[in-house]
Amino acid sequence: MLQVFDISLLIYPGMAVWKDRQEKRPSVRITRDFAADGIRESRLELDSHTGTHVDAPLHMMPGGSSIDQLSGPQLVGPGRVLDLTAVQDHIGRTDLEPYARVIQPGEFVLLKTANSPGPPFDPHFVFLAEDGAAFLAGLGVRGVGIDALGIERDQPGHPTHRILFQHGVTILEGLRLRHVPAGSYLLVAAPLLVAGGDAAPARVFLLGEGAKEGRIPQEIVE
Amino acid sequence: MLQVFDISLLIYPGMAVWKDRQEKRPSVRITRDFAADGIRESRLELDSHTGTHVDAPLHMMPGGSSIDQLSGPQLVGPGRVLDLTAVQDHIGRTDLEPYARVIQPGEFVLLKTANSPGPPFDPHFVFLAEDGAAFLAGLGVRGVGIDALGIERDQPGHPTHRILFQHGVTILEGLRLRHVPAGSYLLVAAPLLVAGGDAAPARVFLLGEGAKEGRIPQEIVE
Repeated sequence: MLQVFDISLLIYPGMAVWKDRQEKRPSVRITRDFAADGIRESRLELDSHTGTHVDAPLHMMPGGSSIDQLSGPQLVGPGRVLDLTAVQDHIGRTDLEPYARVIQPGEFVLLKTANSPGPPFDPHFVFLAEDGAAFLAGLGVRGVGIDALGIERDQPGHPTHRILFQHGVTILEGLRLRHVPAGSYLLVAAPLLVAGGDAAPARVFLLGEGAKEGRIPQEIVE
Repeated sequence: MLQVFDISLLIYPGMAVWKDRQEKRPSVRITRDFAADGIRESRLELDSHTGTHVDAPLHMMPGGSSIDQLSGPQLVGPGRVLDLTAVQDHIGRTDLEPYARVIQPGEFVLLKTANSPGPPFDPHFVFLAEDGAAFLAGLGVRGVGIDALGIERDQPGHPTHRILFQHGVTILEGLRLRHVPAGSYLLVAAPLLVAGGDAAPARVFLLGEGAKEGRIPQEIVE
């Protein structure tokens, strides 16, 4: 039986957003509410980097590829979840070296850390340091994902993003990995196909073979 | 090799929307454009039923499940594309009966028609009639998708939607199927995980085994 792990964050106005800036909060407006003709519809407003999302090179590189220019293989392929929950502050090369022979070229590597998705936004989230990104790029990975709203913080010039973009490595941010066992899956990252987007909110699934559905309901945190 | 067919419509302000109503158009606003710190970000605004999307029962049933309450198996599973490009006006029971032994219970059935995704919006799009929906529900399909912005039109009371919702059949609208051969795939429908949503914009992929990537670039139509 196909096991479906949903590793996407729930989208709602009070969810954690980058540095919990008010202007980055998503909103949902109900535009039809059954009254006239039994139909409910709504309109969403949200940042390209809200919750679970995929970054495009255009996020940091003028003239870089936009989110709609990422090809199928840049979004779908073998994925490996690494248990890095014991790592503090940042993930560097020395944290990843033990996995050098486990990680295969062409895999998406998902970094499962001690991070909590919030709210509130955690300004001290565990991130991927520059030397860790360089190490993964050198292994020929197809993508890197993390369970924080950003893959790096407090690194002047954003070298982690830049190294990954320069090597054509897809960046997945805002994943929810707490309920997913370390191991191998098929990863499907599905950002909205926004023309010219620097990023897009996404639904991301890990598919595996297993006996039960990999679904853990999420609660709205007030 | 894994073949990835992207069956999602490109999202941009001039894309076709329901009856080409201005207030339903998506918008993208650039909020940071490299100037200050080399970062580009943007903010999207779009209807829950924009382009490629998944309907939740809440769209037409007060108290029905919202889009975030659909489980993994309601979004991911075996998918079959039927070539119905010769059918005119609407797809009824008699158009589907020839496939009665082909369609398997638990499959997503995707109706590839003569529809064009636009723009402009085509008010005469081929739709799934009430008796066609009842027939598919009776076969025990998991989902039904179509290459039009709606799965029905001009049917008072929206019986096609209601029959499918009542049978727990997922409804996928706004698919792009012109480039996909009829046949069997793994379908991954990935709507944004919007809390309480009546629907959500989605990226939808069909995965198959094949030699080439199933990607056909889309042009912005002015």
